[in-house]
Amino acid sequence: MNEIKIFSPATVANVSCGFDVLGFCLDSVGDEMVIRKTDKKGIHITKIVGFDLPYETELNVAGVSALAMYDAIDVDFGFEIEIYKNIKPGSGIGSSAASAVGSVFGMNELLGNPFNKTQLTEFAIKGEALASKCEHADNLAPAIFGGFTLVKTIAPLEILEIPTPQDLYATIIHPQIEIKTSEARAILPKEIPLNDAIIQWANFGSLVHALHTNNYNLIERSLHDHVVEPYRSKLIPHFDAVKSTMLNAGALGAGISGSGPSIFSLCKGLKVAKNVKDAVEKVYSETGIKFDIHVSKINKEGIKII
Amino acid sequence: MNEIKIFSPATVANVSCGFDVLGFCLDSVGDEMVIRKTDKKGIHITKIVGFDLPYETELNVAGVSALAMYDAIDVDFGFEIEIYKNIKPGSGIGSSAASAVGSVFGMNELLGNPFNKTQLTEFAIKGEALASKCEHADNLAPAIFGGFTLVKTIAPLEILEIPTPQDLYATIIHPQIEIKTSEARAILPKEIPLNDAIIQWANFGSLVHALHTNNYNLIERSLHDHVVEPYRSKLIPHFDAVKSTMLNAGALGAGISGSGPSIFSLCKGLKVAKNVKDAVEKVYSETGIKFDIHVSKINKEGIKII
Repeated sequence: MNEIKIFSPATVANVSCGFDVLGFCLDSVGDEMVIRKTDKKGIHITKIVGFDLPYETELNVAGVSALAMYDAIDVDFGFEIEIYKNIKPGSGIGSSAASAVGSVFGMNELLGNPFNKTQLTEFAIKGEALASKCEHADNLAPAIFGGFTLVKTIAPLEILEIPTPQDLYATIIHPQIEIKTSEARAILPKEIPLNDAIIQWANFGSLVHALHTNNYNLIERSLHDHVVEPYRSKLIPHFDAVKSTMLNAGALGAGISGSGPSIFSLCKGLKVAKNVKDAVEKVYSETGIKFDIHVSKINKEGIKII
Repeated sequence: MNEIKIFSPATVANVSCGFDVLGFCLDSVGDEMVIRKTDKKGIHITKIVGFDLPYETELNVAGVSALAMYDAIDVDFGFEIEIYKNIKPGSGIGSSAASAVGSVFGMNELLGNPFNKTQLTEFAIKGEALASKCEHADNLAPAIFGGFTLVKTIAPLEILEIPTPQDLYATIIHPQIEIKTSEARAILPKEIPLNDAIIQWANFGSLVHALHTNNYNLIERSLHDHVVEPYRSKLIPHFDAVKSTMLNAGALGAGISGSGPSIFSLCKGLKVAKNVKDAVEKVYSETGIKFDIHVSKINKEGIKII
């Protein structure tokens, strides 16, 4: 096999009470990429469709993660990468992560799978760091493993696969505004009240338990973020209106996707997820701000060959 | 049935990263109590063996929780309570909780079980509040439900039963010193670094996942408390030496039981738990401080009729 086409999914990180550790994978939104073995050594990006991103390997997220893997192998050939980008950069649903995992997943397949999923994540972290200026795996882990993932530690990298209830869907709105990562970080407090932290880990432990036990009511009672959302939601126009609309339309919970501006909700069943979409669409249409909206089953498989 | 004899177990609360929410139940340490229906109305404590505790119903933890239940029922008889106390008050392994749950569990059995476990916990909270000056269910929940319990919220009271791996044991040392609850509370910071809080909920989510998946290695990697232990351990003589001795002897993890002074460890298998006991016994014998030490299987059943 000398060429492979893959689907690299969008992802939601910072899932409410699981801020900085819990993410999940989408299946209706994602990039497509073609990875090709070439006689010419090195990593070369030959095509980018959809958004204006750099062709220079060292300046491109997919290129940097590919180079990290390429440095770890000893081969007499190289790889070409074509990127068909559907996930808007800066949307908060793992655009850079999709690029970063796509190249290394595809190369690994063409090499006969010498690396496991955690190792792929390690390589992809290098690409992600180019985009987000820090090494994290919040979006990479769900993109590679699928379903819900808990990134327990980054050094050493330890990723836990948390079970995904069968009937869980997400509805996500992406308001077309820009939030600078630096601003989203700067707005966070350095210290938080101990009592808020206790509420957060009570909810997070409950959410992990709920995912293990297919307990949708408990998912609903656990999907709260007492720590970060009160700060970051200020950066997203009409956040409170969107969130309450989602909940009123039947969502189990809602919150900021990544560091925003996208807002996600989790829903039991496709019908509810579509109701949430319709309700949010109506509310946001009146704001004058352009937006995309997605309904997606939680993707248990993660990145895949197509 | 007019009389019932019960075993009311000791418990460990504030389990490392699950501070204020996670507890577990012991089976080798506990009080015995006899609850008896009487023609005489009201709640009367007729016997207390083991420790010097008040006979006045309103001043006794078991009496206060019994009164809370008695106020909720309409009967033309009363109850007598005998308490055979084995758990030392102030030990940090749920002495007051054992008393508080014993009376209401026994009364409920004699009444034909009109109340469920959560309702029993509600009554017992009133007794626990007499001892600890605040309403909490950290020790009550594991005593009543058995195994590991997560107290998600106190109002409304929501208790989750987390699975208990089959081969899990605890070794607990109780140094015979007094820690005032007020001091243990005052030493806690009001605010904590956000980064420490994130580490704590990553560990707590991982611990819940580990208990669901019987993953002893992950239990070991998750049993850390980055938030409370650094403060409260200063109140317990030789805490660091005991903890490192427990870990060196093979314990999966160790920490402060409740608000101390007891120190617990969790171990895979009885043999390791006994090794830990022997090693800690040796170290603590040299300190000149008197101590008790217990080895116990995690008690999945909780409080029971004997």
